[in-house]
Formats: sequence, C-alpha cells, structure tokens
Amino acid sequence: MKKISLLGATGSIGRQTVDVVREHSDQFQIVALSAGRNLGLLRDIVSTVKPSMVSVQSKEDCTALQAEFSHLDITFTYGSDGLAEVATYSEAEVVVNAVIGSVGLEPTLKAIEAGKDIALANKETLVTAGHLVTSEARKAGVKLIPVDSEHSAIFQALQGEQEKDIERLVITASGGSFRDRNRAELEGVTVEEALNHPNWSMGAKITIDSASMMNKGLEVIEAHWLFGIDYDKIDVLLHRESIIHSMVEFQDTSVIAQLGTPDMRVPIQYALTFPERMPLPSAKRLNLSEIGRLHFSKMDFVRFPCLKYAYDAGRTGGTMTTVLNAANEEAVAAFLKGKISFLDIESLIANALDWHQVIYNPGLDAIQASDSVTRNYIQTLLK
Amino acid sequence: MKKISLLGATGSIGRQTVDVVREHSDQFQIVALSAGRNLGLLRDIVSTVKPSMVSVQSKEDCTALQAEFSHLDITFTYGSDGLAEVATYSEAEVVVNAVIGSVGLEPTLKAIEAGKDIALANKETLVTAGHLVTSEARKAGVKLIPVDSEHSAIFQALQGEQEKDIERLVITASGGSFRDRNRAELEGVTVEEALNHPNWSMGAKITIDSASMMNKGLEVIEAHWLFGIDYDKIDVLLHRESIIHSMVEFQDTSVIAQLGTPDMRVPIQYALTFPERMPLPSAKRLNLSEIGRLHFSKMDFVRFPCLKYAYDAGRTGGTMTTVLNAANEEAVAAFLKGKISFLDIESLIANALDWHQVIYNPGLDAIQASDSVTRNYIQTLLK
Repeated sequence: MKKISLLGATGSIGRQTVDVVREHSDQFQIVALSAGRNLGLLRDIVSTVKPSMVSVQSKEDCTALQAEFSHLDITFTYGSDGLAEVATYSEAEVVVNAVIGSVGLEPTLKAIEAGKDIALANKETLVTAGHLVTSEARKAGVKLIPVDSEHSAIFQALQGEQEKDIERLVITASGGSFRDRNRAELEGVTVEEALNHPNWSMGAKITIDSASMMNKGLEVIEAHWLFGIDYDKIDVLLHRESIIHSMVEFQDTSVIAQLGTPDMRVPIQYALTFPERMPLPSAKRLNLSEIGRLHFSKMDFVRFPCLKYAYDAGRTGGTMTTVLNAANEEAVAAFLKGKISFLDIESLIANALDWHQVIYNPGLDAIQASDSVTRNYIQTLLK
Repeated sequence: MKKISLLGATGSIGRQTVDVVREHSDQFQIVALSAGRNLGLLRDIVSTVKPSMVSVQSKEDCTALQAEFSHLDITFTYGSDGLAEVATYSEAEVVVNAVIGSVGLEPTLKAIEAGKDIALANKETLVTAGHLVTSEARKAGVKLIPVDSEHSAIFQALQGEQEKDIERLVITASGGSFRDRNRAELEGVTVEEALNHPNWSMGAKITIDSASMMNKGLEVIEAHWLFGIDYDKIDVLLHRESIIHSMVEFQDTSVIAQLGTPDMRVPIQYALTFPERMPLPSAKRLNLSEIGRLHFSKMDFVRFPCLKYAYDAGRTGGTMTTVLNAANEEAVAAFLKGKISFLDIESLIANALDWHQVIYNPGLDAIQASDSVTRNYIQTLLK
C-alpha cells in the first residue's frame, strides 16, 4: 500500500489523482490532502477518501469542517502551515503536488526536506525556483517524478537510457484553443473561447496558458530543470492531435516517444507506480488506425511570443523565470476576471521582463521577493 | 574495442554493418566474416577490414582468395564448416548474423553454443526454429539482440520496462512496393516493380517479402520468439512513411515507440552499442515538421493473405513456421528468376501449408527435414 499526500485535491489534477487512487484502492491510499476554497467538492473527496489530515485555506473553513466530520478521525488544519503539515505528513511516502501557481514551491521544498518523493504536477515550482528544488532533491536523495504529460513522456522515454546519449528533447504542443487563428484574429477573443481546449480537459489557468503558448514555455523551463538539458537542446513541435506526448532524440538519431489518448490519469498513475506500471481499465487504448493521421509543424515564435519570452528568461536564468511566472499568473488571473484582453497577457509579461533586474543564483528569499514585487508591479499596471 | 564476427558481409545488412564499423574504427573491429558468391565486393571488404578469417561458399573461391591475399595474415575457409568457424571464431564477442534465409540457423546455434552474443538480422532463423534458438540462448546466457528495424524499435521501447507490463506489440508496415494496388492490379506485376520499395533500401529477398507482406508475417513470428509474446498480442499497423518503426503498448495504455529516418545503420549500430548509444554522424536526423504527416491504417488480411498465413502458422507452431519460411524462400527465388508470377508466391505457400503434417516440438533434425522436403515439394510444383 503506497501512502500519498495530495496537495491541491479539488483541482483538475487533484480530482484525477483521487480517481486513480480509487481505481486502485488496494494499492494506494491518500493519507493527507489539501484544498483551497472548493468546499463542496472537498466534502465529497473527504467522505470517500477518509484521509487522516486535511488542510484548507482559511481558519473558518477548518473549524466548520472539523465539526462537520467529527464522526471521522481526521485532523483539520489551514493556511500555509497547514499546507506544510500535509506536505510533510509522516505516513506519506510520496507527495503529489497538484496545486496551481508558485504557491506550490514552499510545500515542495518542505516535502523534500522531509524525505518524500515528489510527483510534481505543479510546473510553476520548477519555473520559479528550479535550481533550488533540484539541488535540494539531489541532496535529500528523493525522486522528482513529473506528472505533466509531456514530462512524463520524456521521463518514460528515458527509462533504460543514459543521460550522455541524449541529443535533444522534443516537447509537443497542441497549439491550444486559438491554434487556427492568426494574431489579428486574437483581438477581442473571449474567456469562454480561450477555455475551450481542443484535446485536454484541464484547469482554467493551464488552459489559458495553452492558448498563449506560455504553458509550453513553462514546460521548456521545467524540462530544463527536470532533465538537466540545455535550452538549445529542447525543441517544441506543433502536433495538433496531442497523441505523441513528447520525445527524446538520442545521439544515434534514434527517437523514443511516448504516445497515448490524451488522459492525465495515465501520467498521474505512472508517477505513482514508477518504475512499474499498473492497468488503468477505464482509460481508452490508443487506436492509431482510427485516428488515421498525425500532423506536425514547426513552432512559430512570432505567432506565439510567450514561448520566446520563456526561452529568453530561461537562458537568462536567475530570478528571470520567477518574474516570467509571476507576471503570467497575475496577467492570466486578470484575463479570467475580464479585466484585460487576451493579447494584454503577453504585453504585461514582456513589460515585467523588461523592467526586472535579474538576480543570479537567488536563494528562497530573493525568489519570493522577486515573485512578490512582480505581482505588485503587474497590479500597478492594471490600475 | 568490440570484436565482431560478421556472417553475410556482402548482403545489404552486411555492407551497412561494415559502414558502421568503419565509422567507429576506434570502437569496433570485424575479426572474421563470411560471404557467398559476390567476390568483387568481398575483395573490397577484405582489403579494408582486414579480418583474421574469411569464409566463402566454394573451395575454388577459397583457394583463389588465399593466394590473392597471401600478403595479409588471413585464414580463408569455405562451405558450411567455414561458416561455422566464422560463427564461433574465438576472438569475437558478438556475431552479426546477416545471412539471408534459413541457412542462418546452424551458424546461429553454433555461435550461441560458443557463448557469443548474437546481433540477429536473419529473421528466418527465428521463424524456422524460434523455440530452439531462444531456449539455447537462455541456457548459454547469451543475448539475442535484434537488428531488424521493427524489432530493434520494440527492443529499445522495452528498455527500463518490465515484461509483465506489456499489453501488446504493434509492428508497423509500410505496405511495400504494391501498397497502393488492389489484388486485381497485382496480376502481371514485374520483378522490377516488386523490387522498388518506397522507403527502405534492402536486399532483393526482403523487398519481395515486403511487397507480399510475408516480411511482416516473418516479423510477427520473430517478435513472438524474441519477446515471448502471444500472437494475439502482436498487431500489425499500416504506416506508409516508415517513421515509427514499431511500438509497445503497456497495461496502463501508455505506448512507447521508436522513430527515425529509415536507415538500417541505426539499428545495426544499436545492436553493437547496446545498452549504450554512440553518435552516427552520417545518419539523417528525424525532422517531423518537414515530414508534416504520419499516416496509419488498419492491416487488411484479405489484401495481404501472406500475413494471415504467417499468423496461422505461428499459432499452429511446431514445424509449420519452418514450412512457411521454406516455401516462401523457394517461391520468392522462383519469382526473382521469372519462373512464376507474383501472386503465385502466395498460392505456393498456401499449398505447402495445407500439405504439411505438423510436427510439434521438433528438434534440429526434424526442422531441417521439414525445410528440405518443403523445398522439394515446391520444386515439384514448379515443374
């Protein structure tokens, strides 16, 4: 029985993690979990999962839930201390980090310090502080197992291979909800249109990031840290069907790819069963003859400037990727609230990157300060 | 320095093996080799490779070459004894078996007995006597490393994976030279048309086998023995571009595939470097955005009956696959000599399979007897 601590239980990845655990209740058990403000869904999850510890955002919700679930032996807690308690819960072997945004950084570092393996769905953690997270993980001897479909694909393709033999990583990109529109056609697009991803069912933030191609930019930075590969050796390829989830080219020109029907439960489960696999009977098997054709085309950095910003920030390094991420989080939140247009997301990020004075080799304090001043800066621009 | 014995040096795979060895002359050395009757090419290879032992088909050729190369310290030998001497040459660590047809069986068994790892390009060996070869290799503790691009792809996809997790092997098929013709359009096709393979540059026998889809049938049987997988779990998928060389589906629905520009030197080199890789600077890197589209369609067993015969023979087992292979070898040879039509290949094989009384669990004698009587039977039908 593998015991799991789940951060971000009510988000898209969190819910699918609960599904995977329930499909294998003889193998997996969620012993601790955290959630934000979606109390309705949290109640359902707590009732079925029956964890030993639950953390929520506010003290009020914590008190209310403690009373409500007094018939079960559950410790309720809240806030960033609560999140840290869940991340370091003693019984858990592995922490699934499925929170959204750079708020995932601190609990990740605490879980690493506590010796937990990390199944990482929170890409912002590596974007904002990849050097800290990977060096801490190495020191603590814990595994960082990717949950993102692209990174899981690369991780799977690398099994049985040697780092020295890697020539190039190829991350595939569906193109997101606006892939068939040119830049002029992006003027005045609505939030609803942006949220309509062609292949994947995901949370709002990542779906907007997919439409702006920032999601792929974050993934390039994430791949750089996870696999220790130079940015020059990480390519992005447009592949509209999202069937090839990503690939690794080796020095003999051989390419290993991982494919499948788009279903996040597959990489979630793999992160929990690695290095073994388990059946996932409810997943749809890949049928390439039914699909018929797979399409590929070159990434267009003019059409998708956010991807260029991400490569540039990654190559600069230091706090530049922290700023990229913080500006993006604030801009996407403003777009989702209807405060700015879709194209404003890009210009706000470009503005923040221009404005920022990079700090090289930042510690956690410098990262958190850069994150915070960038958010304030964006808020000032939004006024 | 890895020392190699090369059986079938002047064939397509043999020549490409020589290319790979020459591209890495600091890593690989061919210490012994065999050839058939292509003495012109053999002379070139011997002059550059300078092996310690060379075996040819006839005593006359052997005597002539020994005189001709008296300035070099090379032992020349001939016939099946000579082939066995090359296969068991003491200095060689690995034997690349690139001969064509079931004549590759005996030297493979002898090399295994001598404790050599086998890089196997000769699929007929496993088709005709898969149970013997695999059980002898297990007993001797030697590796059987596939060279066929499809099996190399599966072998690569399986690195770092566990046998219990395999759900299905998917072997891709380009469709061969006649893939865009229906059965009526196969009447009267010429040898030249059949030899014009759309993707791969290969020897005559395998190119005809590709056109009849028997090549894929032989590969299904080869995969069954190499990877120990039931025929019900081996699928064939039409994929005209030959970019995905084959795939493995695992029990979690995840699929691992190996891709590349069609170039046999890649799997040849991998068989020699496994489990590591080495650069192959002269090979063309895969560029999927240049290719643009990959196509897939369902295999049609009515259009390609040879594939059905192969599955049926494989499922029957025993000497049935020996007969399938022997009948095919004789029929293809007759077609290449212009004695029969392309569609006669299929009917001769079907006839031989109907006629044969299967022997289960055959030893080497029974296999050789079945092979021989089948060839005689086909020759009688050809009169």
